[in-house]
Amino acid sequence: MIKIELKNRMNELKSNPAQVLVLGFAALIFIGATLLNLPMASASGRSIGFIDALFTSASAVCVTGLVVVNTAAHWTIFGKIVILVLIQIGGLGFMTMATLVSLLIGKKITLKDRLIMQEELNQFTLSGLVKLTRYIIISTFVIEAIGAVFLAFKFIPEYGTLQGIWYSIFHAISAYCNAGFDIIGNSMESFVTSPIVNFTISILVILGGLGYSVYIDMTENRKFKKFLLHTKVVLVMSIGLLVLGFLVFLIVEYNNPQTIGNLSFGSKLIASFFQSVVPRTAGFNSVSMAGTTNATAFLIIILMFIGGSPGSTAGGIKTTTMGVILLAVVAVVRGETDVEIFGRRIPNEIIFRALAVLGIGLLIVIIVTMTLSLTENNLEDYSFLDITFETVSAFGTVGLSRGLTPYLSDIGRIIITITMFIGRLGPLTMAFAFAKKRREKKGLYRYPEERITVG
Amino acid sequence: MIKIELKNRMNELKSNPAQVLVLGFAALIFIGATLLNLPMASASGRSIGFIDALFTSASAVCVTGLVVVNTAAHWTIFGKIVILVLIQIGGLGFMTMATLVSLLIGKKITLKDRLIMQEELNQFTLSGLVKLTRYIIISTFVIEAIGAVFLAFKFIPEYGTLQGIWYSIFHAISAYCNAGFDIIGNSMESFVTSPIVNFTISILVILGGLGYSVYIDMTENRKFKKFLLHTKVVLVMSIGLLVLGFLVFLIVEYNNPQTIGNLSFGSKLIASFFQSVVPRTAGFNSVSMAGTTNATAFLIIILMFIGGSPGSTAGGIKTTTMGVILLAVVAVVRGETDVEIFGRRIPNEIIFRALAVLGIGLLIVIIVTMTLSLTENNLEDYSFLDITFETVSAFGTVGLSRGLTPYLSDIGRIIITITMFIGRLGPLTMAFAFAKKRREKKGLYRYPEERITVG
Ligand SMILES: [K+]
Ligand SMILES: [K+]
Repeated sequence: MIKIELKNRMNELKSNPAQVLVLGFAALIFIGATLLNLPMASASGRSIGFIDALFTSASAVCVTGLVVVNTAAHWTIFGKIVILVLIQIGGLGFMTMATLVSLLIGKKITLKDRLIMQEELNQFTLSGLVKLTRYIIISTFVIEAIGAVFLAFKFIPEYGTLQGIWYSIFHAISAYCNAGFDIIGNSMESFVTSPIVNFTISILVILGGLGYSVYIDMTENRKFKKFLLHTKVVLVMSIGLLVLGFLVFLIVEYNNPQTIGNLSFGSKLIASFFQSVVPRTAGFNSVSMAGTTNATAFLIIILMFIGGSPGSTAGGIKTTTMGVILLAVVAVVRGETDVEIFGRRIPNEIIFRALAVLGIGLLIVIIVTMTLSLTENNLEDYSFLDITFETVSAFGTVGLSRGLTPYLSDIGRIIITITMFIGRLGPLTMAFAFAKKRREKKGLYRYPEERITVG
Repeated sequence: MIKIELKNRMNELKSNPAQVLVLGFAALIFIGATLLNLPMASASGRSIGFIDALFTSASAVCVTGLVVVNTAAHWTIFGKIVILVLIQIGGLGFMTMATLVSLLIGKKITLKDRLIMQEELNQFTLSGLVKLTRYIIISTFVIEAIGAVFLAFKFIPEYGTLQGIWYSIFHAISAYCNAGFDIIGNSMESFVTSPIVNFTISILVILGGLGYSVYIDMTENRKFKKFLLHTKVVLVMSIGLLVLGFLVFLIVEYNNPQTIGNLSFGSKLIASFFQSVVPRTAGFNSVSMAGTTNATAFLIIILMFIGGSPGSTAGGIKTTTMGVILLAVVAVVRGETDVEIFGRRIPNEIIFRALAVLGIGLLIVIIVTMTLSLTENNLEDYSFLDITFETVSAFGTVGLSRGLTPYLSDIGRIIITITMFIGRLGPLTMAFAFAKKRREKKGLYRYPEERITVG
């Protein structure tokens, strides 16, 4: 009896790759938490306690970067290495790692493995996935290495050879994986005016947030006209959101002494550019997030909610989801029945999917924000805006904070941990993992249409 | 030359009923503002000034109820009657009024008049619109009269015969039109424990927010099974949102001394019920909105954003829009290609329309909130949550406030005025009014489909 049930469970699992992904990520987080919970991981020599270890591990695996303790001060080198490994595995995606292992030990990739990877990377075809995985691994390490070299030009003179190299590697990986962890102690606030640090981190973050399929398309086709529709939408949306974020940040914060008010004009430009890059979804900051005006904080919340592009290390509802929604809205307003862009028509099911991602995303953010505002009502120094900021930062796996993370209650820590987890896997993957299968329809019968008034 | 251009403009207008609606409402608001700007409208005998007169007129015509001055204390009887007339005209819809006038003077209803009304009432067929208009007018006055009689049972003993009748009529109209204006001075806070006031106002608000087509369907078909899909969705969503609002308010505010904490259990139930009714989109309140916890305020913001049902005196994105979106999300999660409910399939174009309403609604709220948080940065006593509350209240033509309306700057007043206007006409009507016509497609050519990854 038990054996049959177990077998049924296994078959169920096989038929639901989303569930495998969810369980795999969860397992990785628990392994990480167990290691970070060891006394040797904390500089004090005393265990941090399981809730905080779990929080930190989830934050690393989900490449979020929210921290309840200062990463630089609290952890030993062992702890920091554990975090870095979790970031790298989380960033590459555990199935990409699993595929790598399979390749290394010569195991054949099964159809099921491919199905899981398809879910993870959000690809449409099964073919070419192995090639894609190899591409992902190699390009990740090459890009991170180049990034580390650039950072070393600043960090080695600043911190000495050994520590400089270690800092360069750590922050290159953290940036490319959009993890946002730093071991400097105040993120990039010390380097607010350093062009090399700002641009290296920014470029790593942007590259990490574009998604691997975009690189491949760009390197293979070279001309914008020849790109896939997906690539075109990712590029246009990414550039659009960067420009929007840059301009609003620069204009609104121009005279704010708590952020860029006291910087030179050139440094204002650098800092505004950096702050437009990082909400999507890097989590570094070169100016204090608590010091921004409410309007800027709200803009950052929206950018964090949108996040990066699919199949990347970024979180959020994704640039393409936002792009498809915008196009659909414009089509409705213009009275058009087809949603078109760049001479192509976007299928209805994609628009429905985008609507579902937006809807579930909003629902998660609303529920978590409301719950936190009830459980964290002792945080008198922090406003509702700060709590919303924290929630969306977790959902978008961004890692920016207005400063309240260390003051969260235990319940608050667990809620944010779960939010980071849902945010990394994506609302739809979570929903697919636990949704009841649709009932089989009898034949081709469809219900009759009936109209309904909306709006 | 000028004549030809004028003629072109007129033809343009005829072909765009949404534009006629927008201009008609705008004209009504300006007429109201001119009257309220007269010295005789203000109790002090001095003109209130045009910006505040415009704000009040827009708030009345758009049945919102946000006020920069206390309605009871500031206005003369003349001013109050002007406001009441604006509410009644705004509530019935100016085109319904125009049709009434046409009927009275025996003018034939033209196809163009019908097209405009179709836009206004959001109906699908042109036939039966005249019948519907007659039905709207008669039922409005009958329901308001009955409501006034019930209110008189409390208000006449409280305020004497003459003033009691005047208060009963004013608040019955204000409630049924979902206007939220009161001439008591503190909304319904004096009557927080009065069952007759609470239930009369609540029933008027709910009836006013259902939409006329729902009444007609219910009176004609009587059984739920026989109702139109539209009616079923309106009823299920309305009841669902009421229950949700009631439970959350009761549980969250149970011990809050600033709202219902000090009331008896029975009064707690009454007050929670009342507060679950009014965000959609009545604008009365029996407990202080500034006193609610952040979580409750956030819930009210969401209820205000959703609002009432189409073709009613209510604002917001509408219950059916929310219902269609929920159904579409569930369908995507379950892997279904058809969006179905009650044995009917919802057409794709309706789902697209719902997405557009949600998208434009969110965009408006985001832009207005950000702008206000910049222009009103002198309001140190009011938080970002209060500003969001104010914005959504205006957009949903609700009229609830955490208390900052009288402290808005002139720019803030104008922004809220415009937001109320957009909220009353609906985001899509506004968009239709000003959108460029779609270019003519050559033949039946459609662009080829191309997929794109979202979420
Ligand atoms: K991050
Ligand atoms: K109202």
